[in-house]
Amino acid sequence: MILINGEIKKTVAADDRGLMYGDGLFETIEICRGMPVLLQQHIDRLQSGCARLGLVMPAADLLKNEIHQLCEYQNKGIVKITLTRGSGGRGYRPAENSESLRILSFHDWPEIPDCYYTNGINLYNCKTDISTSRSLSGLKTLCRLDQVLAQREWSETEFAEGLMSDSAGHVIEGTKSNLFIIVNGDLYTPSLKMGGVKGVMREKVIALAQQSGLLVHKTEMKADFVKQADELFVCNSIIHIWPVRQYAKKKYEVGKITGQLMTLLASSLDQDFNGND
Amino acid sequence: MILINGEIKKTVAADDRGLMYGDGLFETIEICRGMPVLLQQHIDRLQSGCARLGLVMPAADLLKNEIHQLCEYQNKGIVKITLTRGSGGRGYRPAENSESLRILSFHDWPEIPDCYYTNGINLYNCKTDISTSRSLSGLKTLCRLDQVLAQREWSETEFAEGLMSDSAGHVIEGTKSNLFIIVNGDLYTPSLKMGGVKGVMREKVIALAQQSGLLVHKTEMKADFVKQADELFVCNSIIHIWPVRQYAKKKYEVGKITGQLMTLLASSLDQDFNGND
Repeated sequence: MILINGEIKKTVAADDRGLMYGDGLFETIEICRGMPVLLQQHIDRLQSGCARLGLVMPAADLLKNEIHQLCEYQNKGIVKITLTRGSGGRGYRPAENSESLRILSFHDWPEIPDCYYTNGINLYNCKTDISTSRSLSGLKTLCRLDQVLAQREWSETEFAEGLMSDSAGHVIEGTKSNLFIIVNGDLYTPSLKMGGVKGVMREKVIALAQQSGLLVHKTEMKADFVKQADELFVCNSIIHIWPVRQYAKKKYEVGKITGQLMTLLASSLDQDFNGND
Repeated sequence: MILINGEIKKTVAADDRGLMYGDGLFETIEICRGMPVLLQQHIDRLQSGCARLGLVMPAADLLKNEIHQLCEYQNKGIVKITLTRGSGGRGYRPAENSESLRILSFHDWPEIPDCYYTNGINLYNCKTDISTSRSLSGLKTLCRLDQVLAQREWSETEFAEGLMSDSAGHVIEGTKSNLFIIVNGDLYTPSLKMGGVKGVMREKVIALAQQSGLLVHKTEMKADFVKQADELFVCNSIIHIWPVRQYAKKKYEVGKITGQLMTLLASSLDQDFNGND
């Protein structure tokens, strides 16, 4: 089912600015036992993205009601919120006070092999550059052609995810996930000052790691530094944490710290669900 | 009127990859005396963009027929061709052999003040970064949020165009045009290796300049170099050439070489129209 500005519909105007210019944002939210996971964090990120782009943010209660409507008879799945600047304006220049268009859609839960969690994944090294721009860094915008081209490079049966670098060789993130590496007991994740998406799960992992006493460094890193890692993992709102078992011809065990963070995360999400957080 | 895959329609599927991921390309074509201008160049660029993105290019004759259908009772205007990868795929990963969706739309000719051509324009210096990526450089993709944000910075009544630089300070292009500068009688235009759109009019201007004996340099340039220019102009398929009369607090006359190129361009487009080229 798709709700477009609250109505059950399947189409949008051909002149919507989301289509014409990628002028919008999106969120991908896990639905577990019929309830959205980390919903407040997703809403907060959408709100902060709207502020940076000058988009009108829909009321949080409206979004919550529509998510509820989509999930009513569902147990497990994904709700995607797409927010565009709607139609209108003059070329790239948006109309003032243009109303946003919101698209909320429910999607089946993807099949994820258990071994991705127990043994880790094969991580591909993408040749496609990730775009850099201070103006868009951190945002989950509708401009995702980098990621589309990157995923065309490899087959899903060989690699579960691919790691992207900018044209200067800085490792930024996976095509659909954020990267963490562990070096000498500290946690490192790429700085997102120049590009990449500030993932809701990235923030959650950082918070849990800090609570458990780990030092977390957000830093520029190149492939050589990643290769020094003792442990590697990627994360996002749907997959949670996937340990990496192979990257750039180097093999890794599912490390102790990664395992601890996976346990902490599962327990924290469970607490959230039970309203104990 | 809008033709979507040849049918008169106004909407596209809400899961079109153009909307979801900016997964597509577009062309903006001048219609003059009922005929598309530089049509072969636009079709060639679309073809080359399709090859880089792995999109299926529609047959040129099909596009020509649909443009003709849109322009049948029109004298002056714009035809926009938008090509997306259509619906389908699994997240960012496109389906194999996915059929493209093509949207052809007719738009009224914009009112452009005569003084933009005779006295030149005020060129704004945008703070929004233009994204850099070798993988997408030169392409006119649907990911144009940089340009949307940049145009939000200034009012159209003050500046006719804005100049964008990447985060390292390289001047790349206008929000909707390519930049040329003249220094000591030579023509310079930013290299598009790291970003920017390889404009059809940029290629035309380069060809005309070279035919007329000018040296043309495609090169990295920073704002300091631009400020040394004796003449500056911007160009695209709709505006043709706009001389710049003010940029970064410096004033310019409409220079001799810019004037010559404007004359050469007008005459060449006229020849194309009369089939003498």
